[in-house]
Amino acid sequence: MRRNILTVPVRKAGAGAATEQDLIAVEEPLQIRINNRDLAITMRTPGHDQELAVGYLFSEGIVCSRDEIASVDASIENYVDVATSTALDVDFERLERHSFLSSSCGVCGKTSIEGLQAIGCARPARDSFLVDAAVIHRLPSTLRAAQNVFDRTGGLHAAGWFDAVGTLLEAREDVGRHNAVDKLVGASLLAGKLPAADRLLLVSGRISFELVQKALMAGVPMMAAVGAPSSLAVDLALRYGMTLAGFVRDGRFNVYSGDWRITGL
Amino acid sequence: MRRNILTVPVRKAGAGAATEQDLIAVEEPLQIRINNRDLAITMRTPGHDQELAVGYLFSEGIVCSRDEIASVDASIENYVDVATSTALDVDFERLERHSFLSSSCGVCGKTSIEGLQAIGCARPARDSFLVDAAVIHRLPSTLRAAQNVFDRTGGLHAAGWFDAVGTLLEAREDVGRHNAVDKLVGASLLAGKLPAADRLLLVSGRISFELVQKALMAGVPMMAAVGAPSSLAVDLALRYGMTLAGFVRDGRFNVYSGDWRITGL
Repeated sequence: MRRNILTVPVRKAGAGAATEQDLIAVEEPLQIRINNRDLAITMRTPGHDQELAVGYLFSEGIVCSRDEIASVDASIENYVDVATSTALDVDFERLERHSFLSSSCGVCGKTSIEGLQAIGCARPARDSFLVDAAVIHRLPSTLRAAQNVFDRTGGLHAAGWFDAVGTLLEAREDVGRHNAVDKLVGASLLAGKLPAADRLLLVSGRISFELVQKALMAGVPMMAAVGAPSSLAVDLALRYGMTLAGFVRDGRFNVYSGDWRITGL
Repeated sequence: MRRNILTVPVRKAGAGAATEQDLIAVEEPLQIRINNRDLAITMRTPGHDQELAVGYLFSEGIVCSRDEIASVDASIENYVDVATSTALDVDFERLERHSFLSSSCGVCGKTSIEGLQAIGCARPARDSFLVDAAVIHRLPSTLRAAQNVFDRTGGLHAAGWFDAVGTLLEAREDVGRHNAVDKLVGASLLAGKLPAADRLLLVSGRISFELVQKALMAGVPMMAAVGAPSSLAVDLALRYGMTLAGFVRDGRFNVYSGDWRITGL
């Protein structure tokens, strides 16, 4: 495992102005390659790089199942090369054109949403996954307790899979919130556990369009966040009938979409 | 001005479970074009789109001064086309290759930092800008007071220019922290106020490599944040001698680089 925390000298103000050693979260670029061709660079916290690469490829609709992956080579630092079992018809130009700053979007939300349908994003089942409101209130403290790096640096986003009774199944951390989710999704894909139809995804920060897209690709019926959702995140959740809860903190939360999956409201 | 807040129906949990109208921050894609060619898409909060496009081009080293900009056309929704006064030698392939997920990075920090030098990023002057620690403690509350959208939605990052005595000169908000900084930098470029050698940049969240890069390109000698910096952000600030302060909250802050510009520590 690569180190994901660094110790640096820090001048402290407001506490006697001492110079102390402090911990900061590591951020380094990762080059994601597919069949020996450069595809994407992401600034990420080292660790779970293979999962990150696979999760990214899956979220983008480039790889659709574990069977399509022949090998995942992370032997060179800051590079992951995913080899596919069959020749892949990747439209590199489309990816480059549409993914310059955001990993996936068109120039209007409608285009983006149609793009999702085109790459096989399905609506979660309506009634098969129900969660009690009391469970949702407890999710952030459970995730926080599992955040090894965050507790020490305050510098990382976290994402976690939970079951319907609030048990934390798996958690990942990263300087980028989209990376934390890609790592989770990649772990599930490699373990043969997608779609995630019986799981809830919790993220520590805000919810952007991109995060909802990644959750939908993974088949997640419910997503919750400590922070606020954006307009396009809410729009996408409504269109796909995914349950979206935000501001889960201080004994409250807001439900923006799909409240029928939350009992005891 | 395009709307940057939407009203949506929200089911409230923990407060009587009422359905209320609530405000959320708008997120929409913006296509940045240069001389009629697509360059980048960013998911942003509408408003100050021209500044965002110009700031992005400047941060990336594509446009180096206001004189190079002939016009900035934002007449079509979600598109900004920047026309340059002379033919531009843009290496689109390099941009596409290196900017897939992050707007600017190589595969190791060293490459990125050399890239910055290559596009003309200079070290801030060592001693011409000094700020008292007491001023730094007050910055976040001043920025927060100016955040029109955030106060109502909780969903936006903010960035602000301050002078050496803590006066807020200009502030911008966005769902993306890099966009908030691009808007500020673009506003300064269009107003003929770069380099920002006599200003401090405050951001509401965490500090990534990308944000330090943008600040350095704008000639900022000091950057502060309410959140934590990443390792590569600290590394870059140290190499360029930029003052970097993090965790500015609750009467404390940490100085990671350039403490000689902060008096009264």
